[in-house]
Amino acid sequence: MTQFTSRRSIRRYTQQPVSAELLDRLLHDAERTQTMGNLQLYSVIITRSDEMKQKLAPAHFSQPMVTGAPVVLTFCADFRRTTLWAEQRNAHPGYDNLLSFINAATDALLYCQTFCNMAEAEGLGLCFLGTTVYCPESIIDTLQLPQLVFPVATITLGWPAEHPAQTDRLPLSAIVHQETYTDYSPESIDAAYAYKEATAENRHFVEINHVQTLAQIFTDIRYTRKDNEAMTAGIIKALRRQGFLKEYQL
Amino acid sequence: MTQFTSRRSIRRYTQQPVSAELLDRLLHDAERTQTMGNLQLYSVIITRSDEMKQKLAPAHFSQPMVTGAPVVLTFCADFRRTTLWAEQRNAHPGYDNLLSFINAATDALLYCQTFCNMAEAEGLGLCFLGTTVYCPESIIDTLQLPQLVFPVATITLGWPAEHPAQTDRLPLSAIVHQETYTDYSPESIDAAYAYKEATAENRHFVEINHVQTLAQIFTDIRYTRKDNEAMTAGIIKALRRQGFLKEYQL
Repeated sequence: MTQFTSRRSIRRYTQQPVSAELLDRLLHDAERTQTMGNLQLYSVIITRSDEMKQKLAPAHFSQPMVTGAPVVLTFCADFRRTTLWAEQRNAHPGYDNLLSFINAATDALLYCQTFCNMAEAEGLGLCFLGTTVYCPESIIDTLQLPQLVFPVATITLGWPAEHPAQTDRLPLSAIVHQETYTDYSPESIDAAYAYKEATAENRHFVEINHVQTLAQIFTDIRYTRKDNEAMTAGIIKALRRQGFLKEYQL
Repeated sequence: MTQFTSRRSIRRYTQQPVSAELLDRLLHDAERTQTMGNLQLYSVIITRSDEMKQKLAPAHFSQPMVTGAPVVLTFCADFRRTTLWAEQRNAHPGYDNLLSFINAATDALLYCQTFCNMAEAEGLGLCFLGTTVYCPESIIDTLQLPQLVFPVATITLGWPAEHPAQTDRLPLSAIVHQETYTDYSPESIDAAYAYKEATAENRHFVEINHVQTLAQIFTDIRYTRKDNEAMTAGIIKALRRQGFLKEYQL
């Protein structure tokens, strides 16, 4: 079993398939994750066909892991199954709202992360694609997600064909607060980011991106205000389309 | 090490303290969880004082675990630290929008779930409180959370003083879809919920709640439309207050 503390994201995979038996066992065992009211407000779409990987890829900015991995898993917030069950049982569901989306997304993300931890303990490698919420309508169309189903996480999965260096992390003191939130001072910000800014890898990033500071790579290149605002509009549109956001609730 | 498949939520704890060393090690090791752009968009507030537990309890509907647990952890989506860092480094952050909230909430929830998996592997018991997003403003006030920080998960933590029965789960076939979402039919809904509806525990719930069907417990008593819509309004208000939602974006 791989130690969790030695984990790294894996983006290249061997030709060895991930058996349906192993995948099903991990997806089954991960169901033990806590879930709201024991309702399990999530679904998982398993993508194995090349055709579907090709269709999914653009929503993930055509990162090569999507077509290169033996398995792609899309974890969805799902209040549809519960809603259909209720309607079939003489009950009147009311889950077409933002709270319910957040509840279902939470369920889906916790389930996804237990799955990730279990898969990595088996020696599998994976990469979590944060792009899932960037162009949700494209994924909704490709995977034919009906009302009250919304994609919140994607992972590419396979047996590792690389062993990249581990990336840096902030010191624990930078993320933990005792009793109340202690706001950051210029000094505590400097202390929190000193190691990150000093690594050879990050100094190299600054150089090749022709920026002054590491932070500028995030604000000016990777996660810009312009992109964030455009994608916020896309998420709101998709939440409305999937039935999780009504005009009168805003 | 406890097997994950035997996990259950734990709501009663022994008097044995959870040492700061153990807690810090687990919070530190969980930092290996994947995170957007390696930005670690989360913070954790550690509550140990009785006074603060008392103040937090009402937001969690005064469930006894909050005051009864040695430790309460509140996991927050946090774009404040990254924003302050950027401003201090001649960069121009643009994270006051719903996409950024979802990105940070995702980071916080994945980190939280790795922490839960690790804590349970150590033999600790915990209960995840879905109430965190029900009254976020109360938690924001109590923990003094500034702009761009939002509570998304709370766990109560300690050494188990109970060993409850495991709760039921849906069959894997009910949550997994191959290649595209296969919508549910009346028959597949019946099959998905047959076991859940037949357990002695759930039949007892139906009886003592004086309802006709198990689904009605969720729609009419636990998670009603009226409550969901009121709490949706509260979340939207809190997202605006914390700077994650602007009028012009809606």
